[in-house]
Amino acid sequence: MSKKKEVKHIDLKKIEDPSFLRELNYKELDTLSDDIRDYIIDIVSHNGGHLASNLGAIDATIALCCCFDFRKDKIVFDVGHQSYTYKILTGRSLERLREKDGIAGFQKRDESPFDCYEAGHSSTAISACAGMAFARDLNEEKYDIVAFVGDASIVNGLAMEGLNNLGQTNHKVIIILNDNDMSITKPVGALARSFRNLSNSSLYRRSKHTYQKIMKKTGLGRWLLKVTGNIKNWFKRHLMALNIFDFMGFSYLGPVDGHNIKDLQKAFSKAKKMDNSVVVHIKTLKGKGYQPSENDDSGKWHGVSSFNKETGEIYHDDNKISWSSIYSLELEKMMEQEEKSYLIVPATGIGSDLNNIFNKYPDRYSDVGIAEEHAFTFASGLAVSGYHPVISIYSTFLQRAYDELNHDLARMNLSATILIDRAGLVGQDGDTHQGIYDEQFLLGIPNTVITMASHINQVSPLLKESFQNHGVFCIRYPRESMKKEEYTPIDLPFGKWIKEVHGGHTALVALGPVVEELKEYIIKNNINITLYNAIYLKPMDEQAISDLLNYQKIIIYNPYATEAGFASYLAARLLKEKYTGEVIIKAIPDVFVKQATIQEQRKEFGVAVEDIIKLL
Amino acid sequence: MSKKKEVKHIDLKKIEDPSFLRELNYKELDTLSDDIRDYIIDIVSHNGGHLASNLGAIDATIALCCCFDFRKDKIVFDVGHQSYTYKILTGRSLERLREKDGIAGFQKRDESPFDCYEAGHSSTAISACAGMAFARDLNEEKYDIVAFVGDASIVNGLAMEGLNNLGQTNHKVIIILNDNDMSITKPVGALARSFRNLSNSSLYRRSKHTYQKIMKKTGLGRWLLKVTGNIKNWFKRHLMALNIFDFMGFSYLGPVDGHNIKDLQKAFSKAKKMDNSVVVHIKTLKGKGYQPSENDDSGKWHGVSSFNKETGEIYHDDNKISWSSIYSLELEKMMEQEEKSYLIVPATGIGSDLNNIFNKYPDRYSDVGIAEEHAFTFASGLAVSGYHPVISIYSTFLQRAYDELNHDLARMNLSATILIDRAGLVGQDGDTHQGIYDEQFLLGIPNTVITMASHINQVSPLLKESFQNHGVFCIRYPRESMKKEEYTPIDLPFGKWIKEVHGGHTALVALGPVVEELKEYIIKNNINITLYNAIYLKPMDEQAISDLLNYQKIIIYNPYATEAGFASYLAARLLKEKYTGEVIIKAIPDVFVKQATIQEQRKEFGVAVEDIIKLL
Repeated sequence: MSKKKEVKHIDLKKIEDPSFLRELNYKELDTLSDDIRDYIIDIVSHNGGHLASNLGAIDATIALCCCFDFRKDKIVFDVGHQSYTYKILTGRSLERLREKDGIAGFQKRDESPFDCYEAGHSSTAISACAGMAFARDLNEEKYDIVAFVGDASIVNGLAMEGLNNLGQTNHKVIIILNDNDMSITKPVGALARSFRNLSNSSLYRRSKHTYQKIMKKTGLGRWLLKVTGNIKNWFKRHLMALNIFDFMGFSYLGPVDGHNIKDLQKAFSKAKKMDNSVVVHIKTLKGKGYQPSENDDSGKWHGVSSFNKETGEIYHDDNKISWSSIYSLELEKMMEQEEKSYLIVPATGIGSDLNNIFNKYPDRYSDVGIAEEHAFTFASGLAVSGYHPVISIYSTFLQRAYDELNHDLARMNLSATILIDRAGLVGQDGDTHQGIYDEQFLLGIPNTVITMASHINQVSPLLKESFQNHGVFCIRYPRESMKKEEYTPIDLPFGKWIKEVHGGHTALVALGPVVEELKEYIIKNNINITLYNAIYLKPMDEQAISDLLNYQKIIIYNPYATEAGFASYLAARLLKEKYTGEVIIKAIPDVFVKQATIQEQRKEFGVAVEDIIKLL
Repeated sequence: MSKKKEVKHIDLKKIEDPSFLRELNYKELDTLSDDIRDYIIDIVSHNGGHLASNLGAIDATIALCCCFDFRKDKIVFDVGHQSYTYKILTGRSLERLREKDGIAGFQKRDESPFDCYEAGHSSTAISACAGMAFARDLNEEKYDIVAFVGDASIVNGLAMEGLNNLGQTNHKVIIILNDNDMSITKPVGALARSFRNLSNSSLYRRSKHTYQKIMKKTGLGRWLLKVTGNIKNWFKRHLMALNIFDFMGFSYLGPVDGHNIKDLQKAFSKAKKMDNSVVVHIKTLKGKGYQPSENDDSGKWHGVSSFNKETGEIYHDDNKISWSSIYSLELEKMMEQEEKSYLIVPATGIGSDLNNIFNKYPDRYSDVGIAEEHAFTFASGLAVSGYHPVISIYSTFLQRAYDELNHDLARMNLSATILIDRAGLVGQDGDTHQGIYDEQFLLGIPNTVITMASHINQVSPLLKESFQNHGVFCIRYPRESMKKEEYTPIDLPFGKWIKEVHGGHTALVALGPVVEELKEYIIKNNINITLYNAIYLKPMDEQAISDLLNYQKIIIYNPYATEAGFASYLAARLLKEKYTGEVIIKAIPDVFVKQATIQEQRKEFGVAVEDIIKLL
């Protein structure tokens, strides 16, 4: 491309790689930034996706692509949901963002040679880059490795372990600390506060105090204190730059205005020249350039469904309600009755619609930030002290707390309610976010109850039961909505399944909301079959198991987990009971499931309700 | 007890609770410390157990029990393996330490009302105490909560999450940082170094530099620099006290000599009076008072089997070799052939006998400390860069890395070898350390291979196969030893089982070392049965599965995992294949398994080899 004095616009769809950036002046880069901003807002308003984080990262990504050559240098976006600009600059159109066979919402190694790594869960970038840096140096190669990490991610345990390990080595990684003051929800924790608000840190306060004490000790000092304001300011300026990263063995640059491309380039170039690992602290505005998102301090513009980009109205179907909302409303009632209950959320409060509880019980909830492990062990401390902890978490993030659930809750047979949101296929977020594994691993942990409701009228009975000292009581529910309707809670004895339909020689054992669809179809079409609603996955209903042995054929249907989960668990049990009839298992196979709509994903594996109906 | 001027000895076996301590003077407390030391050395020399950490914690535990009243105050020993002195002072004899129905090697809630919490895995204490502190303050109660945490534990991700969360609240916890400079293996990581070696920290170095720069700026300053050494020292003394904990929002006291009971009491009393959370940094000598352990810098006296307390000789049977050692020796050979291989160990190098590799390939291994999550994500960074990572870890600690194995290795289908040591029942360490769950949760993760050898001659073939790009290749082996013998590696095709014995209408499917015992018995007694050695748990041998369908009876025997693991996985598969014969499953039930010998534990659940022989 030719150099022009006037500001030119780049056709975003014609970009092949970031090399064109070097031809642009700062005005042109700013124009490019604006154009990318408009494009991302437009795409996300149609396809949904991560908006605020991407708008905040545009300028920094442009500056990074100017300073580094990511054909040889490597960049890992932590989580990866803020990589839209990087995708555009490396030649990927976002037109089919988050669609089946389209462009993923995260970095993907099979999407572009510019993606050297990929994630979806937070806080992996530093450890991954450490591994890459060790490999580079063992190979005696020369290139830069950049980790782009948000302020909420960097205080997670994994990231801290990564920093702690990397900081003692000579293997260089450039860490961009993208401090946007508002990550998924409000940033939490002492460390996040410490690098956000350095001038108020206890270090600075103490240093100032120290300085004044020194100076006041002698007459000379008092005089000096009075006349040499310069020294004081110099002292302040330099001590303020000291922070947590010094202790971890890193150099530190910043803070830099994350929307000033020139300043960013200057800082990145300086970091590039350094010999050892360095943290470049950039301050960005989440949602930058889109008013509704800039003004949002709740986090609702972090990940959004489609919206009207002119008005900022996020589309909702008022006739529908999500499972998250139902559980939140019923939990609010439970917490009113159960004064010794306490809600713990690892940064997923907005996603799981828990604002009502945050507002009503400000003293009985903790958003611990992206700290899933701590959430569970913290819960165990409450539980041994007579409180009933309720943890709300997404299925996919529960993976981070396997050991704490096992060793710190279940092993001591402590009573706790685990609300597992987004269980099952999650659609467009793809393979990193599928909620299809927790069921399987939970089944292997003693002292654990696993349940899934099929209808709203089971929500409050399950919640109530979870407070009755059954150990770790897990309640799974999917990322789906249902028709809003009046409902009356039903009686739901512990460990019992519901025989929804009775008849025939075939038993269909299903669970979750699909049961309602099947029941409706079976009754409407007068099909002679027995339908069991396996609300309790563990412990299973002993009476129902005996009963099942009398059927010639058993279909086990669970589109909310892999076959290795409940389906295999029940099958193994049937075999132990010497069942000799035919068994058909319909569940998700042993694979990682890429982005598509939930319905597309189910169809691909033959686990849509229509696939089951064909078997009846 | 009456006050005496002369030094008296306390009969340790008559202690009921710590209240007697208040009657003792410092000399008597020191004598008590010596007596406890002798007693612990004596007990551990017979029963085995954690020696070095307990010897290091005696004085601090005495001082804590003097300053706090743990009938109302609460103490959580992180990990809990250093709580022997606490057990003695709270009226528990160690005579039956680590024996079935005896005293556990860790804190146990059902053992004493003085144990308010329990663990076995590291780094849970701060989070648990945070939960307890929230509960106390919600209840408006008044008592102290103490977390006793080692320097290697506190830098684990979970502990860092706990510190980060607790540090921003007003809920007070007293954290005793037990800095013994040598935790399980050499302490690793930038943070551990930072609080160990404050005077060498970059902060202090920079502060000194800053001070000198200020002073040299003016003639007056130069003069001041010369004549007021006092100021300099004052400055140094105070800045040295600044450390990582300031950033985390904690007050800091120390370092204190962890073997001076008077100094310890002074520091603990000060901490008690403070309003907010405080870290009391104590310096202890691991192994204090027992020469072989004091002199050990390898970590071999951390946890020991029985030994001769006079000579310090740890008893070994020279005719036997552990599975850990065999894998280590064979891995050493593999790493010689495979130059792009890299070993990662989360602080379990000594336990898994990997010293030979550390010595031979100093540039191709990392001991990342107690940072299981980082170990796996770090490995993924190496793997995307063309290195083949080998992670050696205990089964029970692998629980901490479920998500990283799933999301960061298996999901990207990266090639890695996971050596899972201490798989199966582990005996005296009890419920916190059982290696019986990993098999189950690994079976639910796609792109994962799971194997277990029955004989040494399969070790090198399995290791070789694990380098052949099969994804995440897991090799489980138990905490057991076998007769040393010459062996020739056998051919072991990928995914194939071995038909060890052929005949009859019953098939016995077993895995791991018990296969050898069974084979010997079957051949010797000429029993007409087929014995399958299921070396590959996943993927299973398709040919063998088809073959199995022809047997009237199938016994699935796996004493190395719970029934929900391979046993159920194979059973479900048989049912899907419409197997109609009888199936008997012999595996560990869905429970947490308390301390006893491995053989006692197997007998309790009917999964000893003798129990299977009865079925043949």
